[in-house]
Amino acid sequence: MELPHVPAPASHTPTASVQPDRKPSVDTLRQLVQADMERVNRTIVENMHSPVALIPQLAGHIVAAGGKRLRPMLTLAAAGLCDYQGDRHIGLAACVEFIHTATLLHDDVVDESDLRRGYDTANAVWGNQASVLVGDFLFSRSFQLMVSDGSLEVLRILSDASAVIAEGEVHQLMTTNDVETTEAAYLEVIRCKTAQLFAAAAEIGPVVAERPADQQAAMATYGRDLGIAFQLVDDVLDYAAEQETLGKTVGDDFREGKATLPVILAYQAGTEAERAFWARTIGALEQTDADMAEAQRLMAKHGTLGAALDRSRTYADSARAALLTFPQNAYRDALEELIDFCVERGY
Amino acid sequence: MELPHVPAPASHTPTASVQPDRKPSVDTLRQLVQADMERVNRTIVENMHSPVALIPQLAGHIVAAGGKRLRPMLTLAAAGLCDYQGDRHIGLAACVEFIHTATLLHDDVVDESDLRRGYDTANAVWGNQASVLVGDFLFSRSFQLMVSDGSLEVLRILSDASAVIAEGEVHQLMTTNDVETTEAAYLEVIRCKTAQLFAAAAEIGPVVAERPADQQAAMATYGRDLGIAFQLVDDVLDYAAEQETLGKTVGDDFREGKATLPVILAYQAGTEAERAFWARTIGALEQTDADMAEAQRLMAKHGTLGAALDRSRTYADSARAALLTFPQNAYRDALEELIDFCVERGY
Repeated sequence: MELPHVPAPASHTPTASVQPDRKPSVDTLRQLVQADMERVNRTIVENMHSPVALIPQLAGHIVAAGGKRLRPMLTLAAAGLCDYQGDRHIGLAACVEFIHTATLLHDDVVDESDLRRGYDTANAVWGNQASVLVGDFLFSRSFQLMVSDGSLEVLRILSDASAVIAEGEVHQLMTTNDVETTEAAYLEVIRCKTAQLFAAAAEIGPVVAERPADQQAAMATYGRDLGIAFQLVDDVLDYAAEQETLGKTVGDDFREGKATLPVILAYQAGTEAERAFWARTIGALEQTDADMAEAQRLMAKHGTLGAALDRSRTYADSARAALLTFPQNAYRDALEELIDFCVERGY
Repeated sequence: MELPHVPAPASHTPTASVQPDRKPSVDTLRQLVQADMERVNRTIVENMHSPVALIPQLAGHIVAAGGKRLRPMLTLAAAGLCDYQGDRHIGLAACVEFIHTATLLHDDVVDESDLRRGYDTANAVWGNQASVLVGDFLFSRSFQLMVSDGSLEVLRILSDASAVIAEGEVHQLMTTNDVETTEAAYLEVIRCKTAQLFAAAAEIGPVVAERPADQQAAMATYGRDLGIAFQLVDDVLDYAAEQETLGKTVGDDFREGKATLPVILAYQAGTEAERAFWARTIGALEQTDADMAEAQRLMAKHGTLGAALDRSRTYADSARAALLTFPQNAYRDALEELIDFCVERGY
């Protein structure tokens, strides 16, 4: 892994494409790629087929629950941005979603190294094992689809991304519960585990459109910095969101002892007593019902949620600058609005 | 998945290359490929490198403990059989071993869907999750190596194998504890989870040597039927081996409730009381200390270990016939002796 890329500071310019009277939304992009996305969804369903019934069952469940389909949308929009006229972006967007789904399945595996190893009943055999194996199937199926596409360049981009994601996940595993993690290590983890697949998804657009290397690099930068901004805001929302709008449980990261940036900054700025609080709740995972509110109070005291959002804006500005490599069109506007959507949902 | 391939019966002919005064061994093959295997081992070590320390630690542990290196040996020997003069078989043999190691890591994941989901201490976070993620890393690294090799044909063979292995593992998950599984379903599971990687490993030899399709198909057949024979004998040894020679714990399959062929055949031939025994011990996993001995007694009564070994000989004969596509040389002799080694360790 390289040291995390930190873009040069840039002024935060409002986006021309967003009307002042409405909030930026992912809907502009979704409508633009809607016809393509329906083909992607059909490709996904077709390629989950297996005579082993559990595979389409389990994979279908998680693909259906998979949310916004941000990553395949990036592939479709980047292809549109480059005025690509072929069909390859459909199958490759499905590849990207399969890799994402496989990592979600593998993220869900629960550890039990300190629990008993036996199990009692036949129907208790599903769970972890099924998640691992169906994830492996989707991952393999993704590479089969890439092989049938036939581009070694795409295979290189997505096998590199897969290796980096796994490295980032292992790195995160080793720094979870470590309140003394540095900001640089945290940024490196989210660059690997989140931003690398955003980068790969976006880069595939100019690759299939056979655009020159500088345009491929620009879309990789766009995807990477959008991904870092996205994850930074996600980590802020875990402490700041209204329960109803987040779509995940507020406080999940806290309960799991994840040393995200708002925690790292609060620990660094904290008094001795506050550091003891973080060491107990995040480091040792000894928590009471009142601790989440205290965590939020300490973050407010030191302004760490705002600081994390400031970082996200720096990456958002870098992503915005990368788009200027391309002439203005509807796709560029929608990709620019996507940046604003990712960042502004934090406010 | 297709229906399992069942080779036509053939007479069991003794192998000319094996002296009557010694047992067939894997050592002939090992010595023949020793220089290449040392290069494979170096490639493996180099490619486990990661700044995330847990990756080389955990991967190194399982690669070192990985045993006989049968699968990469198949790739090396198949390349030698085809008089291949290049270097590509080294990296691709490492790919095969990485895929095998990843599946071992993922096989080790313990299920706990009926256990408590929380964990208490930071150091309990390792275990399942690390196994999954390091397996994912090795799997991705394998595809990176294939991409740098540059052959879409090899990528097709190994991505197909990976998908089939995952399907076979899920299928096995669904039939574990099912004493009414059919022999055909059992054979299909071992064709997928074991034999497909043997087939892919062997097929890569004629592929890199640019041999015609019939030779590629012959080596795929050799690998597949050797793999099925190997797994059949492995499943017999779990009930029959001397503890010291097996290298795994006798009775593991029984304790885990795996419906392997010796169990399936004993259930099919069993009285009502015997079927109740299998339903309790394998189906419901309710076992006492005396049950393993009773299982062995019932298998002896119905001759199911011998019947399973008979099946393995049928596949061994088919593997032996496939080798006749190639002219006699030292590699062919060693690959033939490997068949005898795989089957005769069951006696």
